[in-house]
Amino acid sequence: MSNDKNLTKVSHTVSPGERAAKNGHKGAVIWLTGLSGSGKSTLGMALERELHEMGKQAYVLDGDNVRFGLNSDLGFSPDDRTENIRRIGEVSNLMAQAGLICITAFISPYREDRERARKAAGENFYEVYVKADVAMCEERDPKGLYKKARAGEIPEFTGISAPYEEPDKAELVVDTAETFGDCLNKLTQFVVDKTAA
Amino acid sequence: MSNDKNLTKVSHTVSPGERAAKNGHKGAVIWLTGLSGSGKSTLGMALERELHEMGKQAYVLDGDNVRFGLNSDLGFSPDDRTENIRRIGEVSNLMAQAGLICITAFISPYREDRERARKAAGENFYEVYVKADVAMCEERDPKGLYKKARAGEIPEFTGISAPYEEPDKAELVVDTAETFGDCLNKLTQFVVDKTAA
Repeated sequence: MSNDKNLTKVSHTVSPGERAAKNGHKGAVIWLTGLSGSGKSTLGMALERELHEMGKQAYVLDGDNVRFGLNSDLGFSPDDRTENIRRIGEVSNLMAQAGLICITAFISPYREDRERARKAAGENFYEVYVKADVAMCEERDPKGLYKKARAGEIPEFTGISAPYEEPDKAELVVDTAETFGDCLNKLTQFVVDKTAA
Repeated sequence: MSNDKNLTKVSHTVSPGERAAKNGHKGAVIWLTGLSGSGKSTLGMALERELHEMGKQAYVLDGDNVRFGLNSDLGFSPDDRTENIRRIGEVSNLMAQAGLICITAFISPYREDRERARKAAGENFYEVYVKADVAMCEERDPKGLYKKARAGEIPEFTGISAPYEEPDKAELVVDTAETFGDCLNKLTQFVVDKTAA
């Protein structure tokens, strides 16, 4: 950025602590990662609902509200996937700074990309691995994507023709072999604990 | 985006109405536009404070938290400025969807770029022209940028060597020839009225 030296800071007058005191919880990024069909979005949306019912500020970023807007200029090549996740990491950090519990629901298959998102949000970042093996996701195949991928209709499909790098230091693992209710309870309790003001 | 047809929607379980009922106000984008040195950031930060004191959810996006993160890959060419504003428009819309009063403080000199931001946020978008003539901004020159621009050290500087297209349908004009207190009161009252739940 050529003109960096000509940017000056105007500090926020409302501190993170003041926001937390007002909201009754800290801002945070709850980063859900896992295969297509693992249930990230469904789990994220249910978590958003649970937190809202508790009076907390929560919002889900997912393909629906990001891919069609902010990242509508990006495709699915490795470079574009990386840029997609970079921007989501930055936006989720901004939302956490604004006091929200920002839940992100993206495959985010590359460890390096997730690490960058973690760095953007700092101590408010929690990586949650929504664990489901490929066979299970392929059997569920709620969107029929695995079938298309197997037929070669979707190039670079995570788990089939593109890699998924499992988290090696996720703050929480949610094993979707358990019931949805159990997964949701475990996730909700984790978030409530971590964001306690 | 090649795989658009393979994206499916998972609806948000918390509606904008439910968020407004909880927060006591609607989400919105308060888009401050004006010359460098017109006082956008200072006014935006003071507005954020006022709204917070009233118990409202508010957050400022400005060069400080956007240029160094989300848009750190962009420079100051016309194309990059347009992309800068496009992304800010999308992010501010997401924040409004999340229930926040998102205040943006960017020169945003091109009418077309601001129109695009307006379209992204729809009915929750309010354009506020922070009006100050170039002579006044140049006399203030809080960051010494006009001096540098006159010396040719900053290319494409809005108001000097790059155009500023005045808003022709701003929802509010704040004339900074008035006192800061008067400007802030006028702006705050406008926002409170427009975001009433």
